[in-house]
Amino acid sequence: MAKPTPLSGFPEFLPAQRFVEQEVIATLARTFELHGFANVETRAVEPMDQLLRKGDTSKEVYVLRRLQEDDSAKDKGIGLHFDLTVPFARYVLENAGKLEFPFRRYQVQKVWRGERPQEGRFREFTQADIDIVGRDDLPFHHDVEVARVMLEALSRLTFLPGFRLQVNNRKLIQGFYAGLGVTGDGIDEVMRLVDKLDKLDPAKVRELLLDEAGISEEQADKALALATIRSTDDSFVDRVRELDVKHELLDEGLDELATLVRACAPLATDTVRIEADLSIARGLDYYTGTVFETRLDGYESLGSICSGGRYDALASDGRTTYPGVGISLGVSRVLVPLVQRGVLTADRSVPSVVLVAVTDEESRSEADAIATVLRARDIPCEVAPSAAKFGKQIRHAERRGIPYVWFGSEVKDIRSGNQVAADPATWEPPNQDLRPQVLTTTASDSNTEGNPS
Amino acid sequence: MAKPTPLSGFPEFLPAQRFVEQEVIATLARTFELHGFANVETRAVEPMDQLLRKGDTSKEVYVLRRLQEDDSAKDKGIGLHFDLTVPFARYVLENAGKLEFPFRRYQVQKVWRGERPQEGRFREFTQADIDIVGRDDLPFHHDVEVARVMLEALSRLTFLPGFRLQVNNRKLIQGFYAGLGVTGDGIDEVMRLVDKLDKLDPAKVRELLLDEAGISEEQADKALALATIRSTDDSFVDRVRELDVKHELLDEGLDELATLVRACAPLATDTVRIEADLSIARGLDYYTGTVFETRLDGYESLGSICSGGRYDALASDGRTTYPGVGISLGVSRVLVPLVQRGVLTADRSVPSVVLVAVTDEESRSEADAIATVLRARDIPCEVAPSAAKFGKQIRHAERRGIPYVWFGSEVKDIRSGNQVAADPATWEPPNQDLRPQVLTTTASDSNTEGNPS
Repeated sequence: MAKPTPLSGFPEFLPAQRFVEQEVIATLARTFELHGFANVETRAVEPMDQLLRKGDTSKEVYVLRRLQEDDSAKDKGIGLHFDLTVPFARYVLENAGKLEFPFRRYQVQKVWRGERPQEGRFREFTQADIDIVGRDDLPFHHDVEVARVMLEALSRLTFLPGFRLQVNNRKLIQGFYAGLGVTGDGIDEVMRLVDKLDKLDPAKVRELLLDEAGISEEQADKALALATIRSTDDSFVDRVRELDVKHELLDEGLDELATLVRACAPLATDTVRIEADLSIARGLDYYTGTVFETRLDGYESLGSICSGGRYDALASDGRTTYPGVGISLGVSRVLVPLVQRGVLTADRSVPSVVLVAVTDEESRSEADAIATVLRARDIPCEVAPSAAKFGKQIRHAERRGIPYVWFGSEVKDIRSGNQVAADPATWEPPNQDLRPQVLTTTASDSNTEGNPS
Repeated sequence: MAKPTPLSGFPEFLPAQRFVEQEVIATLARTFELHGFANVETRAVEPMDQLLRKGDTSKEVYVLRRLQEDDSAKDKGIGLHFDLTVPFARYVLENAGKLEFPFRRYQVQKVWRGERPQEGRFREFTQADIDIVGRDDLPFHHDVEVARVMLEALSRLTFLPGFRLQVNNRKLIQGFYAGLGVTGDGIDEVMRLVDKLDKLDPAKVRELLLDEAGISEEQADKALALATIRSTDDSFVDRVRELDVKHELLDEGLDELATLVRACAPLATDTVRIEADLSIARGLDYYTGTVFETRLDGYESLGSICSGGRYDALASDGRTTYPGVGISLGVSRVLVPLVQRGVLTADRSVPSVVLVAVTDEESRSEADAIATVLRARDIPCEVAPSAAKFGKQIRHAERRGIPYVWFGSEVKDIRSGNQVAADPATWEPPNQDLRPQVLTTTASDSNTEGNPS
């Protein structure tokens, strides 16, 4: 077999890099569990008819076929899930009789999309989702809750760059357009066009609003003015009121968004911020109230790395409707660019704190016995693979980043060279040596954009 | 959307059941890390030519195709991996220059096989593998090591039925047959036929040995006699010697297997046992020394739930050969039947230890503040979703198995009804209440075989 080459769009990590990913996932899971979210894992596949319900994703789906399958089996097609929302909605319906509502779950899994690989976009990637789903109804305070939980989770990822969580509310946007006199499908059309502001010039979007949506110049100017409003507190309410548009749905949206921002503001830190951004619409998704997007400081070109919102009908079986609110963090979208640029790695490639040296093969069982005593005390360690010269055994540890080498009745910190008498039944490494630590390069070296290696 | 139905062969768990799986995986990972194994995750897909190198698995592979893909792309086909060994061998070759050898890794991931679903056999399932791979050579003591690590991991899964790890050595079998005078391909042919003893009568296997392998009656009788030998210590050596067959490779195999059994015997417990079983051959795989299989007590019909062995060439790029030894636990194969029969579940469906009651919606922020204090002390909790009557809030906790409900300045253990004054800044639940606990039904209810529900 010749040396294999990587598959574009299917990123993989070396062990030290993978440790960073494990640390991120463990931190997220721990935070979600502190808030009572239960973990769920769904199968990787869904029936094709479920995956194709959203027409615009059809081109991205990977279809599965057994190698020996004949053509007649094609109608029962299955494909790989492209997000965790479609499988979760199916899981809720399938198990509705066995779940307690409101049902709070987190889910960290790989998803697959057959799209062209590019910066921050992969064919296989990991997402971490939290959702709360109710039966028939779901109070608004759960919108606040998912935002607060994700803010807390992000603020615990102290080795990552800062985050900016941007929130808006579809009721606010739709009520505003309705108050402007836009009606029917025109509301979604205006929203879809205003959503292009992150790619197009305001003048160009204004032109499209007049030509494609057919609204008046005054309506277009106010729609664009709304989208310029942002604030880190509830002062956006007054600025919207100054535009002098009135509608019941607008009032409801303003009230919800103000409540959300006020409840989340106390969680802001130097690196994790929240702001109302009235340009956010998540145009292609079926949200019905709160919407979330998130930017990673210094990596804005990645787009939103954590998005979500409120669905009044996350799932429905015709008789019962399940409203939901959730948010999804693109774990790979954040980590792969940072790891590939060398911004993030770990200080060792193995979990071992100690390498137990072996004097000669005859005494290997003595080294094994020392390791067994250390492991019984929860200290990860490994025994040298050969009774090489001690210098070579030390280099074995060095190359893996293992901080300590154990020789008979002494232990050496190979970073300082300090060697002391030690008993495996009582010796303890400093707490920060117990597990690999995430290393970050300084912001000046790394906090610039570019192509992944 | 009508109520969806499960897909045969793609098992999923309810939250309390999933907790059992998380607990198993966390225990395995912790044990593997204590022994210095680094975690690796490989992509779910491999090029088809890699997946089809073992001819007999071709029918089981799921091929991937993008929905909009044209036929010309077919030659660059990819499929889902059917085990974790093929991807790991590829990963080692691809990253050989960046890894330190001997390289020790564990990997816990889903794999996919398009085979017909049946008891303990699924189309999507989770495996947990450990392997040690060397460059050019890998000392035999690593065979001992992987066996010991897996024995330790299994013995920590105290809520599972007992395990019996069966070990043998290909050198022993092949040297024995060679010593009998069997030559060339005949050796593999005899091994393949003797391997059928777990399905066929010894008399039938004897007939096949004479007819298909063309060996003599005396050779067949001795081959069958070898396969009847088993022992929990190294006494199997004398029993093989009594058969009066001599060969250098046989001596090497006997020596390795005796060393392995002696080194593992001290790890045996009431529930986790090891035995030399000279009928074990793992006939279809390319092992070259040690081979492992494992039976789950009371569930022998599942077949081997944890298998592996030594490959002299786990991977090779033509210039360098990477020998390896490893063992793979079928996490789903063990858990799905036990969970589906109700033998295993957890005592709650959420991580929450406490439900903080809400008196009225106006005071929800006070309940939130109590929850925040508890969480800062690593106590998982959730706030009641509505300010219903307290009886209803208690039932909300009961249905999820949450043991405590917090009312203002008091906390109630809803199992005992005991309610005491408490401060969220100092209150601590008993340790066993901090996390969900795995529940097992008694052996008399459960330890029988049958079809999964």
